[in-house]
Amino acid sequence: MTTIATPIKQEKSNGSFTDNNQTDKTMKALVYHGPGKKSWEDKPKPGIKEPTDAVVKILKTTICGTDLHIMKGDVPAVTDGRIIGHEGVGIIEEVGNAVSNFKKGDHVLISCITSCGKCEYCKKAMYSHCEKGGWILGNLIDGCQAEYVRIPYADNSLYPIPAGADEEALVMLSDILPTGFECGVLNGKVKPGDTIAIVGAGPIGMAALLTAQFFSPAEIIMIDLDDNRLNVSKTFGATNIINSSSENVIEKIMNLTNGKGVDTAIEAVGVAATFELCEGIVAAGGRIANIGVHGKPVTLHMETLWSRNITITTQLVDTSTTPMLFKTVQSKKIDPNKLITHHFRLDQVMEAYETFGNAGKEKALKVILTA
Amino acid sequence: MTTIATPIKQEKSNGSFTDNNQTDKTMKALVYHGPGKKSWEDKPKPGIKEPTDAVVKILKTTICGTDLHIMKGDVPAVTDGRIIGHEGVGIIEEVGNAVSNFKKGDHVLISCITSCGKCEYCKKAMYSHCEKGGWILGNLIDGCQAEYVRIPYADNSLYPIPAGADEEALVMLSDILPTGFECGVLNGKVKPGDTIAIVGAGPIGMAALLTAQFFSPAEIIMIDLDDNRLNVSKTFGATNIINSSSENVIEKIMNLTNGKGVDTAIEAVGVAATFELCEGIVAAGGRIANIGVHGKPVTLHMETLWSRNITITTQLVDTSTTPMLFKTVQSKKIDPNKLITHHFRLDQVMEAYETFGNAGKEKALKVILTA
Amino acid sequence: MTTIATPIKQEKSNGSFTDNNQTDKTMKALVYHGPGKKSWEDKPKPGIKEPTDAVVKILKTTICGTDLHIMKGDVPAVTDGRIIGHEGVGIIEEVGNAVSNFKKGDHVLISCITSCGKCEYCKKAMYSHCEKGGWILGNLIDGCQAEYVRIPYADNSLYPIPAGADEEALVMLSDILPTGFECGVLNGKVKPGDTIAIVGAGPIGMAALLTAQFFSPAEIIMIDLDDNRLNVSKTFGATNIINSSSENVIEKIMNLTNGKGVDTAIEAVGVAATFELCEGIVAAGGRIANIGVHGKPVTLHMETLWSRNITITTQLVDTSTTPMLFKTVQSKKIDPNKLITHHFRLDQVMEAYETFGNAGKEKALKVILTA
Amino acid sequence: MTTIATPIKQEKSNGSFTDNNQTDKTMKALVYHGPGKKSWEDKPKPGIKEPTDAVVKILKTTICGTDLHIMKGDVPAVTDGRIIGHEGVGIIEEVGNAVSNFKKGDHVLISCITSCGKCEYCKKAMYSHCEKGGWILGNLIDGCQAEYVRIPYADNSLYPIPAGADEEALVMLSDILPTGFECGVLNGKVKPGDTIAIVGAGPIGMAALLTAQFFSPAEIIMIDLDDNRLNVSKTFGATNIINSSSENVIEKIMNLTNGKGVDTAIEAVGVAATFELCEGIVAAGGRIANIGVHGKPVTLHMETLWSRNITITTQLVDTSTTPMLFKTVQSKKIDPNKLITHHFRLDQVMEAYETFGNAGKEKALKVILTA
Repeated sequence: MTTIATPIKQEKSNGSFTDNNQTDKTMKALVYHGPGKKSWEDKPKPGIKEPTDAVVKILKTTICGTDLHIMKGDVPAVTDGRIIGHEGVGIIEEVGNAVSNFKKGDHVLISCITSCGKCEYCKKAMYSHCEKGGWILGNLIDGCQAEYVRIPYADNSLYPIPAGADEEALVMLSDILPTGFECGVLNGKVKPGDTIAIVGAGPIGMAALLTAQFFSPAEIIMIDLDDNRLNVSKTFGATNIINSSSENVIEKIMNLTNGKGVDTAIEAVGVAATFELCEGIVAAGGRIANIGVHGKPVTLHMETLWSRNITITTQLVDTSTTPMLFKTVQSKKIDPNKLITHHFRLDQVMEAYETFGNAGKEKALKVILTA
Repeated sequence: MTTIATPIKQEKSNGSFTDNNQTDKTMKALVYHGPGKKSWEDKPKPGIKEPTDAVVKILKTTICGTDLHIMKGDVPAVTDGRIIGHEGVGIIEEVGNAVSNFKKGDHVLISCITSCGKCEYCKKAMYSHCEKGGWILGNLIDGCQAEYVRIPYADNSLYPIPAGADEEALVMLSDILPTGFECGVLNGKVKPGDTIAIVGAGPIGMAALLTAQFFSPAEIIMIDLDDNRLNVSKTFGATNIINSSSENVIEKIMNLTNGKGVDTAIEAVGVAATFELCEGIVAAGGRIANIGVHGKPVTLHMETLWSRNITITTQLVDTSTTPMLFKTVQSKKIDPNKLITHHFRLDQVMEAYETFGNAGKEKALKVILTA
Repeated sequence: MTTIATPIKQEKSNGSFTDNNQTDKTMKALVYHGPGKKSWEDKPKPGIKEPTDAVVKILKTTICGTDLHIMKGDVPAVTDGRIIGHEGVGIIEEVGNAVSNFKKGDHVLISCITSCGKCEYCKKAMYSHCEKGGWILGNLIDGCQAEYVRIPYADNSLYPIPAGADEEALVMLSDILPTGFECGVLNGKVKPGDTIAIVGAGPIGMAALLTAQFFSPAEIIMIDLDDNRLNVSKTFGATNIINSSSENVIEKIMNLTNGKGVDTAIEAVGVAATFELCEGIVAAGGRIANIGVHGKPVTLHMETLWSRNITITTQLVDTSTTPMLFKTVQSKKIDPNKLITHHFRLDQVMEAYETFGNAGKEKALKVILTA
Repeated sequence: MTTIATPIKQEKSNGSFTDNNQTDKTMKALVYHGPGKKSWEDKPKPGIKEPTDAVVKILKTTICGTDLHIMKGDVPAVTDGRIIGHEGVGIIEEVGNAVSNFKKGDHVLISCITSCGKCEYCKKAMYSHCEKGGWILGNLIDGCQAEYVRIPYADNSLYPIPAGADEEALVMLSDILPTGFECGVLNGKVKPGDTIAIVGAGPIGMAALLTAQFFSPAEIIMIDLDDNRLNVSKTFGATNIINSSSENVIEKIMNLTNGKGVDTAIEAVGVAATFELCEGIVAAGGRIANIGVHGKPVTLHMETLWSRNITITTQLVDTSTTPMLFKTVQSKKIDPNKLITHHFRLDQVMEAYETFGNAGKEKALKVILTA
């Protein structure tokens, strides 16, 4: 889950409120200081602000492509002084008196989406648009690349981790796996025997690749510009790979599909060219499931698509499938560790950004930061 | 169902085959002779060509917006000499020896979509893309604005009309009602209590308006440039009307919906401006259901829509709901006669085109031609 | 929503807790004192017990068939001293400090189902099985046939009523309309053009009858033993009525449906005979949607049904559709007042039970008690 | 697909018609001669009877549990002289003049369900109830345990086999895989992360077990009386096995599921005890998907199930998923050969019945007969 566009919601409170939930103690955190500027620095340790809050001591966190966008200044809602990050696992440090699902010492998975559980959208499981939550962590409120983080509406925004679980794997459930699964695979209605294409073999495309296999498609065609990522995708289950810098994607896909195109095309990049590629490769009766974050309009070729019985979907991840995905990880139907290419200590976060920011050269997918 | 774009399929046979299914007798028919040229003239009466064919004597037919496009030359697949028209009711004149559902003398409803019943698409009820059929009547083969018409795959492309049925009303089931219902209402997933908007109050928008009420939406907002059509739409069940030539549609809809937008926006025009209007009025989590036939690309504002959990659908009508709609007409849950504004004799078809071609001035929705 | 069977959950707390949320003041309430014994008596006025509670001053309430079962002693979970009732509208008197959707003075609709909003079931909108709620009002905790009632998890268990709404009509949304709609109509997947049968023309069958029309079935066949109720059902939209005491229901339905049976059979009684009747009248490919509360097993004729592609559903109402139904009432797509046959003052509740308990003789459907 | 109950449809024609489609030549076939009597004997080779027919030379066929029932006299519709069998692959020998999808020499998969493609049920893909077809092969007309078989409505009842396909594996697509998949897995709505139970580890339960894995359930609990079959099921993907002769199934399942029960219980036996077991192990909100053929009624415990939000389904296989399953076999997402335990020549069919009829002792699942 990432954004480079206008903020979904603006912080309504004035700056002073952030003092209210601080404690006397300090902690270390990765702080944004305007485009191109960040530092690993002392910040006040957060405390309980609302009775529905929890404070979580971070055990493991990671960096999202969105965080890179934030650092470039592409997300104007993020202001100077904000602690970044919206993923991780940790231990409950403290809970507000209206929190009933968790207590101090519980291990928890943090969802990138905060859900109040009682607005119109939450009742529809469309948590991304929660009237009081949504994507606010590391965006409108302080986030997870820190020693401690305050989680609003903890009962609805955290998930319990049982003893013995693989907590590193579970970090992938904060954002990337539900994003690939909900926005790509579920919206794309992937079915047994289908032929699907995933445009973009970055972390999010790889998450779609892994979770698409829950539904046993016959063919998964992976499309990217990077041969390394394409080769990795084959080890993740791709049945065909196409390097769009050197091959005619549409022609190759039409050859693979008897001229029909793919049942589902998953867009996992977020630029006009890749979206329009999806328009060109989707079969009549098929689906285009957008995951990518777009900063500009795309051209929709309605002059041909109008009669082709196509469905196009967009979605900001709701993380409504986190419990389902949790069970698939616990039962080893999926191994999220495949997505983890690099490890750092939390206090090496500046170095981790360096690596993740040069993902192609570093052959990086996801990095793990351990406190 | 209309097309102004490239043909979906081309006639594969050479011209000589059309002689094969002609009889010695002649009949009158409306014939296309290139852009701007048509005439009501003698043509050979069709006969059985394949064992799955039926020949139907037309009782009532109508003119579609598509037919106007054909006459302008917008549908290059339609060639000089073609008999136009893809809607109507009639009496079975003759059947091939593999036809088992019908016999001479049966009254039948003609579907605008021909279905072979045995290809991959027909098995999925996606008849619009039937490998041997689809929209071919009055397009790739001779059509219904004639005294007789040959219907391929008659068992799957005709529907029996019981004695005593209102046959004039049933003409609306050949194309316009399934088109509004399938492409607009079903794809738009209209539900009880929803607020929906229909952009375009022409015949197809009106068909969506009538059939949307099967699902009891709370509010139906009708948008058009023509005050007469808007006023008519109120008598058809619209709860709000907006004249987009004089009002700010987005502002007015946001006022009506507490700033949320509509659950479903149905596009029933087929130009970029109206499609983009739908993008602007759809609520987060909502649906844009396209019915309109587009000749040009549209701009899809993915820079805002990517995170709004939107579904966009396109469809060439499959007429898979014709039996369902038939039951709603028979049980008087809908009155298709509301769509019929003008009556002509079949031999007045040239005059009928004149009226239908000036629909705004003539206050025309659908015309009925009676043989 | 009613039960005559084993309790779904037992009160876990000891009796002393009930003192905790009492205030010094008293109020009047209808109290159960064991089988056959009830009285309108003084009880302590409830107060806030948990931060998620609200106390509601009752404006209007009603009596449910379940309440009659409770009074007979059929619901062992209900113990001596319990205030009965789980339906009504009222005014917020007081809220706990974790309640954010409501404040003192707000008019609210009370759901018969209490939902915590944060357990596994609530996240699936299966509120009936909420781990901390479900049907507890007037069952495991004090209910609505009183001047005041404490509502746990108020943010998720109450709905705001806008100024000017018809509050009497809205009482029908507490239980009976969502029950008929969810358990009967939605589970029964009623569609335009369908032929459906509703077995039982009591209040719940009538609620199914009214809400089934949201989906425009072609035929609605109402079956009961009481001619008066059958005649009333015709004024509510039934297209056919069958008195099962004097007519052969299966034979008549097969005549009406060309020997096929009905697409959906809704069971709204709760005895073996009516359930088995549904088995006999459902068409191949059809659905049996059970609403009735059963106290005994039924015989399922799998020796014929195994090959008939049938779906059978059961459900304790979740009231997840209350917001949807609210919109249909506000937009006048349904008139719940049709269900209201008798009016009493709240302090006439003993008399109201007398009338409702003799519904056949009194021609009663729902009674309204106004404070 | 099997039946021990009343016939779904009776042969309407008189006996003489069967002569019409015979040729002068003879062939060998397995013929039923009343309860307990069968022989491998000479029969006239079938010819084309209707223009929609094909005659298929059998390459490989198998024996179904239904065939054993037929042989015992449990299926009264099957009369003396009938050639048994409804599964197989073969080569087109001859086609009627209305057959367009196949020609002499094509390799084809025979569906156990015959579909006319043009009745109300076929248009809904509910081929099992086709007005002119359904399960008729080896039942109301001569079947596949023969050198040749006539297939009515060949275009809709056969599937093309591409060169190089594993034809032995494909025999499993005639009946057993679509039956397990459609009636068990699809009706049971198996989802990623679910816990499911399959009651019965015979061929049909095993087919459900294999195809359930298309949807990545977390746990698959297999229940049977036969330790060998249970052990085999573990090699097929079962995560837990329970021998119901020695273990308390309900207690064990409640232990495995935190007292909740399974999301989906698939009944693959067809007796009252196993159906009622499913009632006892299904979780609130769960599904019971019946595959088994029942000869007697079962007791449905509505006194507990009424409030548990349960769905129960029955189905005679439609084989509508055969194309989907075909793709999963071709792409090696499933290996149907696992179901094949024994091989015979077609002329050893009497011996094959002996083995299959003693499946427990012989450790047999499916046998293959090769012509």
